[in-house]
Amino acid sequence: MPELRYNMITRQWVIIARERAQRPEEFSQKEPKKPLPAYDPQCPFCPGNEAMTPPATLEFAPRQGEGRQGWQVRAVPNKFPALSAEGELVRHREGLKRTLTGVGIHEVIVETPVHNRTTALLTDEEMVQVLDAYQQRYRDISNDSRVAQITLFKNHGAAAGTSLEHPHSQLIGTPIIPMEVRDRMETALHFYDEEGECLFCRTLEDETEEGARVVLEGEHFTAFVPFAALSPFHTWIYPKRHSASFAAMNEAEKGDLARILRRMLRKLHDGLGNPDFNYSIRSAPHDAAAVKYYHWYLSIVPRVTRLAGFELGSGMFINIALPEESAQFLRGVPTD
Amino acid sequence: MPELRYNMITRQWVIIARERAQRPEEFSQKEPKKPLPAYDPQCPFCPGNEAMTPPATLEFAPRQGEGRQGWQVRAVPNKFPALSAEGELVRHREGLKRTLTGVGIHEVIVETPVHNRTTALLTDEEMVQVLDAYQQRYRDISNDSRVAQITLFKNHGAAAGTSLEHPHSQLIGTPIIPMEVRDRMETALHFYDEEGECLFCRTLEDETEEGARVVLEGEHFTAFVPFAALSPFHTWIYPKRHSASFAAMNEAEKGDLARILRRMLRKLHDGLGNPDFNYSIRSAPHDAAAVKYYHWYLSIVPRVTRLAGFELGSGMFINIALPEESAQFLRGVPTD
Repeated sequence: MPELRYNMITRQWVIIARERAQRPEEFSQKEPKKPLPAYDPQCPFCPGNEAMTPPATLEFAPRQGEGRQGWQVRAVPNKFPALSAEGELVRHREGLKRTLTGVGIHEVIVETPVHNRTTALLTDEEMVQVLDAYQQRYRDISNDSRVAQITLFKNHGAAAGTSLEHPHSQLIGTPIIPMEVRDRMETALHFYDEEGECLFCRTLEDETEEGARVVLEGEHFTAFVPFAALSPFHTWIYPKRHSASFAAMNEAEKGDLARILRRMLRKLHDGLGNPDFNYSIRSAPHDAAAVKYYHWYLSIVPRVTRLAGFELGSGMFINIALPEESAQFLRGVPTD
Repeated sequence: MPELRYNMITRQWVIIARERAQRPEEFSQKEPKKPLPAYDPQCPFCPGNEAMTPPATLEFAPRQGEGRQGWQVRAVPNKFPALSAEGELVRHREGLKRTLTGVGIHEVIVETPVHNRTTALLTDEEMVQVLDAYQQRYRDISNDSRVAQITLFKNHGAAAGTSLEHPHSQLIGTPIIPMEVRDRMETALHFYDEEGECLFCRTLEDETEEGARVVLEGEHFTAFVPFAALSPFHTWIYPKRHSASFAAMNEAEKGDLARILRRMLRKLHDGLGNPDFNYSIRSAPHDAAAVKYYHWYLSIVPRVTRLAGFELGSGMFINIALPEESAQFLRGVPTD
C-alpha cells in the first residue's frame, strides 16, 4: 500500500509510492559525465581569464599550499544577471497588474580555480573557504536596502540547470520575499504559537531520536532525509543551534558544516555515480534574522527523477524512493 | 532593466529577465524526436494488446470512419499506480508525523489507437472524445468518497516525464486537497471578499481587453499567456463562463475547448519543433464545485527550460521569455 506523508514544514503532502519504488542503486547514473580538463582557456572562471567576468566583489587567497593560483575562491557579479544591480526600486500598479523594477543582486561564487575539481571533491579546508565566501557576500548584500531576501544555491550538471561546468554557486538578492518563504515563516509561526517552540528544532530532535532517516551527524549539524522527502535522496542539513539566519553561523559551525556538506556530496558522488543536483540555503529574510520560530537550513535535491504533469498540476509530489531506504543507502556509502 | 511581475492567482513573483531573454524562435527544439511506427507490438496501449493493461473503465468507439479499430479512446487503471484503488482511508498521527494510507485512483486515458498520432495532430472530433473521456472519468471518480481532489494531466516527451510514447493522459484522485489548491482557493476567496467578483473572470476580462497576451479566442474559451508567466510559452486556457469545476463543462463548451486546445498544441508543435510539454486541468475540489470565487482552467507548460537551484530554493521563477513576445509568436504560427 502506498502512503501519503505530510511535510509539516512545507505543508506538502507527498505520495510515497511503495509499489513503484526503486531500490536506491537503481538511481545510479548510467552515463558517466565526460571528463574535463584541469584548465579550459575558454572558461571565464579559470585563472588568467579574470577579465572575462565583471570585477570581483570578493577574492580569497588559498589558505595553504605552494605554487597554487593567486585566488582560491572568487565572487563576481553575474555577467548576464537576472536582476540589475543598478537602479531604483519602483512599484507599479495598474488593474490586476503589479510590477517592480527588476533591481537586485546576482553574483557567481567560483569555488575553486581548478576547472575539473567538482564540489564533492573539495577538501574540508577548501569548503570552509566557499562557505566563508557565501557568508561574507550574504552579509554584505544584506546591507543593500533594496534587497529583501537572499537565495544562495548551486546547480551541478545539465539536469540541474547549469550551463558552465567550472564549479560555482550563485546568489540572488531579490527585492521581495518569495511567497514560499513567507508561507513557511507563517506556518512556523503558527507552530510556535501553539507549541512554544521552533518547528525545526523539534523536527531535528525527533529525527535524531528516531535515527532512521539520519545520514550524518556532526558536532553542530545533522544531515537527514525528511520524513516526507519530495524526491529520492532529498536531504536537509540543519544547524543544531537554533538560528533563523545563515548570517549568524559562527566559525566552529562553519567548519562542521563544511565537513558534513562535503561528505554528503561525496556520498552522492560515489554512491550514485555523480548525479546532477541542486542545493540551496534557506534562510529567514535578513530583517527577520533573530526570530525564534524560523530556522535556517540547507536543502540538497539530487535530480535523478523529473517533475511531470501531476507535480505541475497539483503541487504535490510522488516520491519513488522510501526516505528510510535512501538514508540507509547514503549512510552505507563510505567517506572519510 | 528586468522586471518583476506578480501573479495574482498563484501569488508568485516572477523575474522577467529582459536582458537574458531569448527570441521565441530560439526555443525551437534542435533535435527532432525519433519517428515512431503506427503500431508497436510491445506497446500496452496499442490495439490488440488490451490484455497488457487492467480491464478498461471506459471505452469509446470511433464516432466516424470505416475500418478503424474497435475503440478510439480507452481509460484503464494504471498498472503501477501511485495510489491504491483498494483499501480504507486511515489517518495516523505520531509526534510530528502525519500519514494517510495511500488510497486513491490512478488511471491512464489512451487518446487514440494509433501509436504515432501525437495529441497535437488529433482532429477536433477526436479531441472531443478525449475530453469526453476526461470528463466522464472525472465525474465517476467524484463519487468515490475517499477522493478529495482529481488532477488530470498529460506528459508529452521525456523532459515532461513520460515513459510511454503512445499518446495518453493521466488522472490521479487523491484523498487530500493539495496545499497548492487550498492556497489558491483561499487567495481567490479573499479577492471575492474584497471585490465581489471572481479573480479569474476579472483576469480574463482584462486580458481580453488588453489583447497583448491572447493567443486564441473561441466562442467559449480563451487561450492566453499569463502576465506573470512562469516559463516560456506557459499558457492558460480559461472558460468564459464562470464555473469552478471541470465537471460542469457543457457540450458546446467541450467542442470549443477541443478546438482551442488542439490548435494551441498544434502551434507549439509546428512553431517550436514539437517540444515536450505538460498540461493539467485545475479544477476546484468536487465538493466545492459550485463556489463563486474559483474558476477552473487548463494550464500548458512547454518544457523548453529547466528548473534550477534558484527556483527550488526560493519558489520564485525566472522567465527568459517575454510573455507578450511568446503570445505574439504563437499567434503568428498558422493553424486551420
